[in-house]
Amino acid sequence: MNIAVAQSGGPTCAINASLVGVFKQGLLTGEIDAIFGSINGIEGMIEDELINLKSIIRTNEDMELLRQTPSTMLGSCRYKLPAFEDDPAVYEKIVKTLETHRIGIFIYIGGNDSMDTVVKLSRYLSHIGSDVRVVGVPKTIDNDLPVTDHTPGFGSAAKYVAATAQEIIRDSSVYSIPSVTIIEVMGRHSGFLAASTCLLRANGEEAPHLIYLPECEFSPEAFIEDVRKEMAKHKAVVVAVSEGVTLPEEGAEGYQSGATDVFGHKYLSGVGKYLERLVADRIGCKVRSIELNVMQRCSSHICSKTDIDEAERIGRHALRAALDGQTGKMMYFHRVSDMPYAVSIEMTDAANVANLEKMFPKEWITPERNQVTDAAISYFLPLIQGEVDILMKNGMPVHFQRPLQMR
Amino acid sequence: MNIAVAQSGGPTCAINASLVGVFKQGLLTGEIDAIFGSINGIEGMIEDELINLKSIIRTNEDMELLRQTPSTMLGSCRYKLPAFEDDPAVYEKIVKTLETHRIGIFIYIGGNDSMDTVVKLSRYLSHIGSDVRVVGVPKTIDNDLPVTDHTPGFGSAAKYVAATAQEIIRDSSVYSIPSVTIIEVMGRHSGFLAASTCLLRANGEEAPHLIYLPECEFSPEAFIEDVRKEMAKHKAVVVAVSEGVTLPEEGAEGYQSGATDVFGHKYLSGVGKYLERLVADRIGCKVRSIELNVMQRCSSHICSKTDIDEAERIGRHALRAALDGQTGKMMYFHRVSDMPYAVSIEMTDAANVANLEKMFPKEWITPERNQVTDAAISYFLPLIQGEVDILMKNGMPVHFQRPLQMR
Repeated sequence: MNIAVAQSGGPTCAINASLVGVFKQGLLTGEIDAIFGSINGIEGMIEDELINLKSIIRTNEDMELLRQTPSTMLGSCRYKLPAFEDDPAVYEKIVKTLETHRIGIFIYIGGNDSMDTVVKLSRYLSHIGSDVRVVGVPKTIDNDLPVTDHTPGFGSAAKYVAATAQEIIRDSSVYSIPSVTIIEVMGRHSGFLAASTCLLRANGEEAPHLIYLPECEFSPEAFIEDVRKEMAKHKAVVVAVSEGVTLPEEGAEGYQSGATDVFGHKYLSGVGKYLERLVADRIGCKVRSIELNVMQRCSSHICSKTDIDEAERIGRHALRAALDGQTGKMMYFHRVSDMPYAVSIEMTDAANVANLEKMFPKEWITPERNQVTDAAISYFLPLIQGEVDILMKNGMPVHFQRPLQMR
Repeated sequence: MNIAVAQSGGPTCAINASLVGVFKQGLLTGEIDAIFGSINGIEGMIEDELINLKSIIRTNEDMELLRQTPSTMLGSCRYKLPAFEDDPAVYEKIVKTLETHRIGIFIYIGGNDSMDTVVKLSRYLSHIGSDVRVVGVPKTIDNDLPVTDHTPGFGSAAKYVAATAQEIIRDSSVYSIPSVTIIEVMGRHSGFLAASTCLLRANGEEAPHLIYLPECEFSPEAFIEDVRKEMAKHKAVVVAVSEGVTLPEEGAEGYQSGATDVFGHKYLSGVGKYLERLVADRIGCKVRSIELNVMQRCSSHICSKTDIDEAERIGRHALRAALDGQTGKMMYFHRVSDMPYAVSIEMTDAANVANLEKMFPKEWITPERNQVTDAAISYFLPLIQGEVDILMKNGMPVHFQRPLQMR
């Protein structure tokens, strides 16, 4: 039997580690012959664009390099399978690819959109009497998938954000004049990553003094009041804000990130720039906003060893589950204990995750809606532990290089 | 005899290592009693705001932590001494501080503005017959000081920029559609840091495909032409651009970073956003711009060991030179050889550096003015070598924490 694996959605530092997990487990399983990588997610299965992974991952060092390489080695897609009734042809193309290459198992690593694909494809295959199994492996830096305690990729993003926020705190405090620094963190709907800046409190930092999440209504007036209060206590006030905080309709035209203007152009500025301008206008002090941008999802050089190890492990478990005959499932982490940290890897119907979002718990947000509680620290802390010993060359991390035909 | 040391200008990852160098050399020198830190650069000398460094740097671990802590532990200033003729009172206040605390040596760690202070203060002290000596230690991530081969702080910034640019290259190449990614790098007048992204070629990366520096005239037309040419060759085109590239007067209103609008507001967007909009308008493909912002000057977690070690060494040499009776000097690096890399630490009149800027060498820029030559790689490569073994706690780097009265 052959198997296929694909990656989907936004890049993370851990999605290649899950690929390594599937690959390693495949090598160790006698009944598995070829291990195919599907190029650009499910699109590769539709278009029959597969690559023989054994031909490009050839050594133990290759596997190590892949583990420390951010982004999706096999490419990605944002493609969502149509309903079978609307477009059976797409499903038939996938089945053709499966048959052509004698693929008995398809592992899909991705977020809640990808789990929708796992649901639809596994149902279709069962419907036509195929015994091909489809199992999902979660990933997303947003940590917004239901059922699972956390998602692979989140821990590395949180570690980067915490380390970088701490460095920005140092940077922001050099001058003698009062200042406000606003750090914009990813998270369209869910505030986990912005909230994780509370981790710095575990190392004695007082900042970020204010944290704003999309889970709460945002009031510019309350924000300015909050900043004024903090400025009375601290010379250099540091604010962390989720990109997904909802801005008022009036006064914030042109600032919501990701949105497009009437010409279809992406707005140039996000929430951070909006708050920067607000502080400049209303308080008039030195103010700066910093967008952590894609660095928060791809800074493998400071990834979390816990995250990378878990991502590999959950990839291995996914293939084992499929070999056991499971289909239409997503693997997930069940947290047994914060301290000592222990998780087990379990399985749920992918339908319990597909297209659903988990929000940052309301009970971990302070009544003032501008900070998170210590309970959140206990939750986040285990996820950023440990450093991967990154292989360097010429003073720079070494990345696994895709074969030329994929660049 | 007592000594004083101060830090000035924009933060870097290495300026605290130079402080450690001065401090260590002070501890080792029998004739030196107290080692004072002047708070917020020369301002602390004027206002008599000094701190006894031995009371806050108390252990070998403290010194290690300070070496791995970015930004300026003693605070900073942008204050430039007035000419003595215009304001003798400022000089008299400094002399009073020197006398009150029996300070015989003042070491100033900073950029070309700070060397202006070294020149003026040392001349004044000689003029009044004082034997207090003033010696400068260079620092700046811009690498734009004359005389010295390179500046402490630059190597760490270049290492961060190279590692991060490589991760952005991975991130930018996941989707199947053509795209342009623009990385905006610091450097108001001098392009060294943006140019250093060429280092990735040493590890086999083809990107950044285009590099634009302030040393060359910038033409939007030529830029669009360059991007089109690269898009014909690569699916994901990556561009590095100095923030200091001069934009045309027409069509770029509101984009030059650091500039202020008629209301005194800082413009919200820089060169990267301008180029992003230009590509969106003229080519219409997927495009993203990324500002590396203050992270490029404060990301100590991936600092260059060569840089940090050299920064400490040049700090020690500065104190030794002052003990030898030197004044009005700046220490600098003379490169003996690229391979094996060897530098000696020499001394020049601070007047040879004060207020002057070094530009990226024209002969290292390609005739097309959109890339740099391999000679630049040989120059940059030794400066980013080696990693500091960062002390971590709770999965995050540990920073030296200033005493409470300084926060």
